[in-house]
Amino acid sequence: MTNEEISRILESVKNQEINTNEALSLLKDFSFQELEYAKIDHHRELRTGYPEIIYCSGKTTEQVKGIISAMLEKDVDIMATRASEALFEAVKELHPELIYFNKARIISLRKRKPVFPDTSICIMTAGTSDIPVAEEAAVTAELLGNKTERIFDVGVAGIHRLMNKLDIIKKSRVVIVVAGMEGALASIIGGLIDKPIIAVPTSVGYGANFGGVSALLAMLTSCAGGVSVVNIDNGFGAGYYASMINKL
Amino acid sequence: MTNEEISRILESVKNQEINTNEALSLLKDFSFQELEYAKIDHHRELRTGYPEIIYCSGKTTEQVKGIISAMLEKDVDIMATRASEALFEAVKELHPELIYFNKARIISLRKRKPVFPDTSICIMTAGTSDIPVAEEAAVTAELLGNKTERIFDVGVAGIHRLMNKLDIIKKSRVVIVVAGMEGALASIIGGLIDKPIIAVPTSVGYGANFGGVSALLAMLTSCAGGVSVVNIDNGFGAGYYASMINKL
Amino acid sequence: MTNEEISRILESVKNQEINTNEALSLLKDFSFQELEYAKIDHHRELRTGYPEIIYCSGKTTEQVKGIISAMLEKDVDIMATRASEALFEAVKELHPELIYFNKARIISLRKRKPVFPDTSICIMTAGTSDIPVAEEAAVTAELLGNKTERIFDVGVAGIHRLMNKLDIIKKSRVVIVVAGMEGALASIIGGLIDKPIIAVPTSVGYGANFGGVSALLAMLTSCAGGVSVVNIDNGFGAGYYASMINKL
Amino acid sequence: MTNEEISRILESVKNQEINTNEALSLLKDFSFQELEYAKIDHHRELRTGYPEIIYCSGKTTEQVKGIISAMLEKDVDIMATRASEALFEAVKELHPELIYFNKARIISLRKRKPVFPDTSICIMTAGTSDIPVAEEAAVTAELLGNKTERIFDVGVAGIHRLMNKLDIIKKSRVVIVVAGMEGALASIIGGLIDKPIIAVPTSVGYGANFGGVSALLAMLTSCAGGVSVVNIDNGFGAGYYASMINKL
Amino acid sequence: MTNEEISRILESVKNQEINTNEALSLLKDFSFQELEYAKIDHHRELRTGYPEIIYCSGKTTEQVKGIISAMLEKDVDIMATRASEALFEAVKELHPELIYFNKARIISLRKRKPVFPDTSICIMTAGTSDIPVAEEAAVTAELLGNKTERIFDVGVAGIHRLMNKLDIIKKSRVVIVVAGMEGALASIIGGLIDKPIIAVPTSVGYGANFGGVSALLAMLTSCAGGVSVVNIDNGFGAGYYASMINKL
Amino acid sequence: MTNEEISRILESVKNQEINTNEALSLLKDFSFQELEYAKIDHHRELRTGYPEIIYCSGKTTEQVKGIISAMLEKDVDIMATRASEALFEAVKELHPELIYFNKARIISLRKRKPVFPDTSICIMTAGTSDIPVAEEAAVTAELLGNKTERIFDVGVAGIHRLMNKLDIIKKSRVVIVVAGMEGALASIIGGLIDKPIIAVPTSVGYGANFGGVSALLAMLTSCAGGVSVVNIDNGFGAGYYASMINKL
Amino acid sequence: MTNEEISRILESVKNQEINTNEALSLLKDFSFQELEYAKIDHHRELRTGYPEIIYCSGKTTEQVKGIISAMLEKDVDIMATRASEALFEAVKELHPELIYFNKARIISLRKRKPVFPDTSICIMTAGTSDIPVAEEAAVTAELLGNKTERIFDVGVAGIHRLMNKLDIIKKSRVVIVVAGMEGALASIIGGLIDKPIIAVPTSVGYGANFGGVSALLAMLTSCAGGVSVVNIDNGFGAGYYASMINKL
Amino acid sequence: MTNEEISRILESVKNQEINTNEALSLLKDFSFQELEYAKIDHHRELRTGYPEIIYCSGKTTEQVKGIISAMLEKDVDIMATRASEALFEAVKELHPELIYFNKARIISLRKRKPVFPDTSICIMTAGTSDIPVAEEAAVTAELLGNKTERIFDVGVAGIHRLMNKLDIIKKSRVVIVVAGMEGALASIIGGLIDKPIIAVPTSVGYGANFGGVSALLAMLTSCAGGVSVVNIDNGFGAGYYASMINKL
Repeated sequence: MTNEEISRILESVKNQEINTNEALSLLKDFSFQELEYAKIDHHRELRTGYPEIIYCSGKTTEQVKGIISAMLEKDVDIMATRASEALFEAVKELHPELIYFNKARIISLRKRKPVFPDTSICIMTAGTSDIPVAEEAAVTAELLGNKTERIFDVGVAGIHRLMNKLDIIKKSRVVIVVAGMEGALASIIGGLIDKPIIAVPTSVGYGANFGGVSALLAMLTSCAGGVSVVNIDNGFGAGYYASMINKL
Repeated sequence: MTNEEISRILESVKNQEINTNEALSLLKDFSFQELEYAKIDHHRELRTGYPEIIYCSGKTTEQVKGIISAMLEKDVDIMATRASEALFEAVKELHPELIYFNKARIISLRKRKPVFPDTSICIMTAGTSDIPVAEEAAVTAELLGNKTERIFDVGVAGIHRLMNKLDIIKKSRVVIVVAGMEGALASIIGGLIDKPIIAVPTSVGYGANFGGVSALLAMLTSCAGGVSVVNIDNGFGAGYYASMINKL
Repeated sequence: MTNEEISRILESVKNQEINTNEALSLLKDFSFQELEYAKIDHHRELRTGYPEIIYCSGKTTEQVKGIISAMLEKDVDIMATRASEALFEAVKELHPELIYFNKARIISLRKRKPVFPDTSICIMTAGTSDIPVAEEAAVTAELLGNKTERIFDVGVAGIHRLMNKLDIIKKSRVVIVVAGMEGALASIIGGLIDKPIIAVPTSVGYGANFGGVSALLAMLTSCAGGVSVVNIDNGFGAGYYASMINKL
Repeated sequence: MTNEEISRILESVKNQEINTNEALSLLKDFSFQELEYAKIDHHRELRTGYPEIIYCSGKTTEQVKGIISAMLEKDVDIMATRASEALFEAVKELHPELIYFNKARIISLRKRKPVFPDTSICIMTAGTSDIPVAEEAAVTAELLGNKTERIFDVGVAGIHRLMNKLDIIKKSRVVIVVAGMEGALASIIGGLIDKPIIAVPTSVGYGANFGGVSALLAMLTSCAGGVSVVNIDNGFGAGYYASMINKL
Repeated sequence: MTNEEISRILESVKNQEINTNEALSLLKDFSFQELEYAKIDHHRELRTGYPEIIYCSGKTTEQVKGIISAMLEKDVDIMATRASEALFEAVKELHPELIYFNKARIISLRKRKPVFPDTSICIMTAGTSDIPVAEEAAVTAELLGNKTERIFDVGVAGIHRLMNKLDIIKKSRVVIVVAGMEGALASIIGGLIDKPIIAVPTSVGYGANFGGVSALLAMLTSCAGGVSVVNIDNGFGAGYYASMINKL
Repeated sequence: MTNEEISRILESVKNQEINTNEALSLLKDFSFQELEYAKIDHHRELRTGYPEIIYCSGKTTEQVKGIISAMLEKDVDIMATRASEALFEAVKELHPELIYFNKARIISLRKRKPVFPDTSICIMTAGTSDIPVAEEAAVTAELLGNKTERIFDVGVAGIHRLMNKLDIIKKSRVVIVVAGMEGALASIIGGLIDKPIIAVPTSVGYGANFGGVSALLAMLTSCAGGVSVVNIDNGFGAGYYASMINKL
Repeated sequence: MTNEEISRILESVKNQEINTNEALSLLKDFSFQELEYAKIDHHRELRTGYPEIIYCSGKTTEQVKGIISAMLEKDVDIMATRASEALFEAVKELHPELIYFNKARIISLRKRKPVFPDTSICIMTAGTSDIPVAEEAAVTAELLGNKTERIFDVGVAGIHRLMNKLDIIKKSRVVIVVAGMEGALASIIGGLIDKPIIAVPTSVGYGANFGGVSALLAMLTSCAGGVSVVNIDNGFGAGYYASMINKL
Repeated sequence: MTNEEISRILESVKNQEINTNEALSLLKDFSFQELEYAKIDHHRELRTGYPEIIYCSGKTTEQVKGIISAMLEKDVDIMATRASEALFEAVKELHPELIYFNKARIISLRKRKPVFPDTSICIMTAGTSDIPVAEEAAVTAELLGNKTERIFDVGVAGIHRLMNKLDIIKKSRVVIVVAGMEGALASIIGGLIDKPIIAVPTSVGYGANFGGVSALLAMLTSCAGGVSVVNIDNGFGAGYYASMINKL
């Protein structure tokens, strides 16, 4: 939408050729804010139901600070993922309510908590080493307004630990399974429950794990139905997707 | 088996309503039927809400016939995927109500149609060649009791064809995006709507497509939120997963 | 050749029981028979406890016939793997006792049945399509003198089918797990029993299965102890290895 | 849990020796201990014959300390693999009998030494750089109660070094072959002896070695029978598997 | 060397304007300067229209200094890519006019600015993290005498940001699209405009991105026409190629 | 939508046969035609300067016939790539002017030949086996209105064959290099001329060629500037891209 | 073309023994013959000491016939590799002396047999299935004038078969080792002899062999010195290279 | 050990010149020296014509020192590759004549210089960054007694730099081509000369170079004859192999 088009719409409003509702609709508003290095999508919450979320990895500290500053001026909620503790130290001066989830590596400032149904999202891990990815998923889901259940370290090498938690798992509306190595936990859960499972392969492992590829392939080829997959270590994506489903 | 079920069986033992042998049988026997080459999971519908589904690829005609015959005796619904037309010719004599969806390559006999909410599942393809996979997804979803919308051949090379259908897409409860080549359609839809998207990479393409790997990787690394992925060409998995979400 | 054998030969030379040419021949000649296209290792049974086994894939019918003919002359047992039915038709005229296991694709003529302990080898498959590889393993183990138990189609998508067979599995001395797709069955069994497991990935599956690579990687990175792996579809290797362990 | 165990519990209920709540607890509770980040499987030794073993890689120092502390309270044996020297420094205060094998990177506290047969496990390496992986295998086997033989640096580039040790190798009950680069040593040994060989590819090498993939593939495709494979650098897995076989 | 040039030299020999030694030197000597570790191609500008450009990665500081010194003596323009700030600190003493573009990591000394047509090259990025690669492309194009337009952070997750810039994009003569993750931006632009697009995959991303491979494959298999691809992170190559096209 | 159609709409507005809203609607509606299995993009020529082109691979004969029939009704030019001879036999009845280029596997019906500058596109191959891909590129370029030069079988194994053609190559405006195996020809040409080169890796070769991957990687990592790459065997893409550049 | 040759031509010009046009022709014309689809390099024998060799794979029968016909006119020797029996049937009418080596798949017509030293090339295979590749190598070497020794089926699974042939191997000047599966034979030979070894990986095998990649990687990472590698199944390349070395 | 040697030992036994124990020792003992972590192959020089060479990568400083000390006692020549400067600082105290080649990263002590023919080995690189690998090759060849010619930085981007050196190249007996990126230099040289070429791919490059894989594949699939390949960055292997050929 060019400046001229916007001007013309505004003139039409002024001349009462169209009313403000119509104008609003016309502007249907590709509003975004332009920094030198980023275009902040303030319109995103309206369009997709979720605020713009900052992926910190690969951005300089100055860039993250600039983006957060610009968002603070607009009074929108803030969520920044893959944030190191050092990064948080650098940005926390921008606003007193900025908080840091260190296991999940997420910076957040959340004023409007969306009202979600009372159902919960269950986040499971196969091992202890998978917890950071699971925490990214869980905190993401919580910040987006969901209840969560954490069940960690219930991998298939000791399957009775899992069976013991089956009631909690079955009561959840959607289940996130976080697993590295051979990722078999996703298939097990898929054979036991009738809820959608979001499988998150992790880079936990070594050798023929290839940085998470083994778990990724295993989850994609799972013989159990009801399993879909997100990128390796993508806790955020899983939490976001689970929230979408939980909100339906 | 939940705690309550176990408790109930134990109470029956205590009250001498059933003897220990009967209890043993109840506790151990998740019912299934044993053929020489297969164990048919009649319990599956109870456990996961969906009937046992026969994946025909890699099974001999005799094996598929045997499994269907055994299931017909139990009067359960039948759904067999990756079935060639020749296979259907061989099995259709088993029951007059067996039907064949040739684009989707599915054999079906469905008596009990589950009652689902009135929301629909949208199945999109980037190109014409992706249609067989999309049909597998659509017919699966329909046999499981869902309404569907098909929007085919709206790939990014002519993005206006997609924009034209945006209203239908936005009205769906969950969207399946089927695409080969570079699979960019999933990212586009992910940036435009706020519903969960199930991305199905297809093996359509050549050269650096590597049998669907390019689309698979692109979908897994999508910069848009709200996208999860199933195996290459796995139309069935996508339809099944969408049905799960739609049923929530 | 052990030190003792060499010493004995040398003593014979010193004692002039044999001349140096004969000694040379003894020292150099590990006996084998030379055809134009193959060197048949008659010494193998002595050296490794198992007869020379013919891997038919990649050999012409004439070559297989030639090798079998040469072995028949030496009166050794015969075992030929990856043999098509057509190949068997071509070679069965060589000897009336040659038999064919069509599911396992093995041609055999076995006179001396080795005496093994009374323990058995359990061969499991995740699905029906994995059966040909499992049969290759089972028939191999049987021809080498072992008792076997077959448990087919107990994949993780219906884990109760597996639990039902746990007693049989636990009684075996060594377990072969044959699985395609994500190969999770090996990890499950590994977490439940304390016997060595030989995992055989199969090429059953499609898409991100990559001809068995997904199952292979999953089995190699299994978080359960007690799992070792052989090549994709290598039923023979698994049966042979299990026999070695069972014979200890 | 076997049929007999379930029957016995059910009989106790019927005889009112225990009430249904107690039975429920017995039936459901495969005992494990729950920390915030881990579920310690005390039942494991009973179930699989081996104690729970801590894989330190990817766990924080605090997590490893917490798990060891919890295990010390239960008076079970302790074995922690992939432990750096720094980690040992941090945990050794927990108990005076904790010891550290620095070449094998294993922390251990072992009270009950299992009684194994008098046969030994032979651990071989192709080169000097493969020794750390071999030590992990050897120490694991020893802690699990086995006798071992170490034969290092006998790779195929100087095959006479290997021939010289053949007597020792042939006397072992099971052989672990640790090799990087092209991993040919496993095939050589496989052609010379009739004992099960556990091949461990290592990441030793460079270029087309791809972090151990070349050795892994070579071992999987070995033309010698009697070779099974574990993950790259997985000395622990090899030692554990060899112990299982030696114990049969 | 064209036929005409050879003919002219031969004519000079025949006319005895030059002797055979001189002719030999002319025929053989495509002029270059020989250092111990490099052969500087002063002839390159004549032959391909562009000066020799120094790729600093993998060269020692001393080598880069030596090459720049040698070129300064010949009074040719200098352009050195993949130069760290530390490298610039080390070489800037060689000439007062050497300047450093720190976002693009390029050292330059440019006296002769080639005269290009008035058309411009548009450089786009999908995200903020792609900017360093885009800057390398943009500065390269500018140093080679082209006008540029930068449009950053317009990835497909917020496609309206892109639509807003479509006029500028369409006015450019050639477009460089720099994108990591799934690289879908190249396909989108390819479907919207009729100018050649040079796609640069970046290593931005994680997990199944495999250091840029996902974006690379997606761009190669783009269903949109008019897209060609250069190496991952190869901003220089894209700027150079765009300049070639713009100069036609 | 052709220029003529747009003109006609504008005339209707001028003649007040339709009002501006109706005209806007006609113009805004990116006209495409909806078949059951395809959406034909008649507007494409306006938007990108090139007609919709049918990629036949993966489409059924009925689908291709349907699409061509629909396009014939609209009187637009037709170009269908990857068309087998059998496919042409099936569609040629649709229109007497449909012709088939059998080496290039292209079906065409071209009425309006676009007027291009008098410069030509040079298409080179390294070997004889690369010719089909080169023909696809050449015929595509010609159908789009370009002059072409073909130089086949000038690979680096006999580099003098190439040198002999250097004059023709240098006179072209843009060069397409088609090569399989190690694809070195693209680098050679890149070091010799100052025109943009479009490299097309082919699947010609065997073994470590991996279906064209070796040539693809070599072309992407070419040390010569001025080389961009399209998908393996993508002769059409190269011809289309070259045409875009030639038209600038 | 050496300096001396150029000088001589220039002198001839100066002395007016030849005119400039003739000189141009001499300088530019490395003689080759141009067909529509191929440029036959008659100059090759002069330049590299070996005749132009036709690689038939990927060429049509008509193209091979055309090339052979053109070469027959020039009276040069002919060697065509990867030729099917059907192809030979089609071309043998061109000349009565054309012969076919069916195991090696080579068509040949050789008049001038080069005189080589009396040393021989040893060609070994690990298995029977590797023989076709070995025959391609052996026949190539023989046609180029070398003596050969064939030692087939001496793989590492029965290493004594190899030891028995060590004298013959050690007497050869250069050794070609052809092996599929894990390719360990090359390393073994490399540790036993001090002659250059040319390793040829073959595509013999299955599963994790990946069409010869396992053998290729093993040979490249061989811990034995004195091993170089050619492409998978490239018997011709190995024979040609061995001939080069033998001729030195 | 040849037949003759065995015969001679046997004759000595028969003639009672040596007793059976001595004979046993001679027959079994291919002499090597056993350290805790290494078996030094003093017999190697006799067997393969080259001394044992220490590959330092992956060995601790103490291990390298121990091996060198043991070799110094035996008065054999020493050559240690992949040695860092720090390693040399640690070992140089062992003997005053130990020297360090820092570009080649080789430690050496060479007393007996083998007498080789007067022919030389030519080592070429495509770029400046390839020099360390080339130096490893060159110094290796020199230490083994060969004359060398170094021609660096003559990659295909400026092919005239190469042509200028063609005379030197053609006079060498064997040529080592060291190249990263697309590795095209090997093919070029292969088309120009008739001497064996040893191609060494290097890890120089980025992105789709994949640590040298692109160059490796390109060299393996070279369309030029006379090219064999060693491992990525394996300068030592190339120098050793070239020396073997030069010595023939």
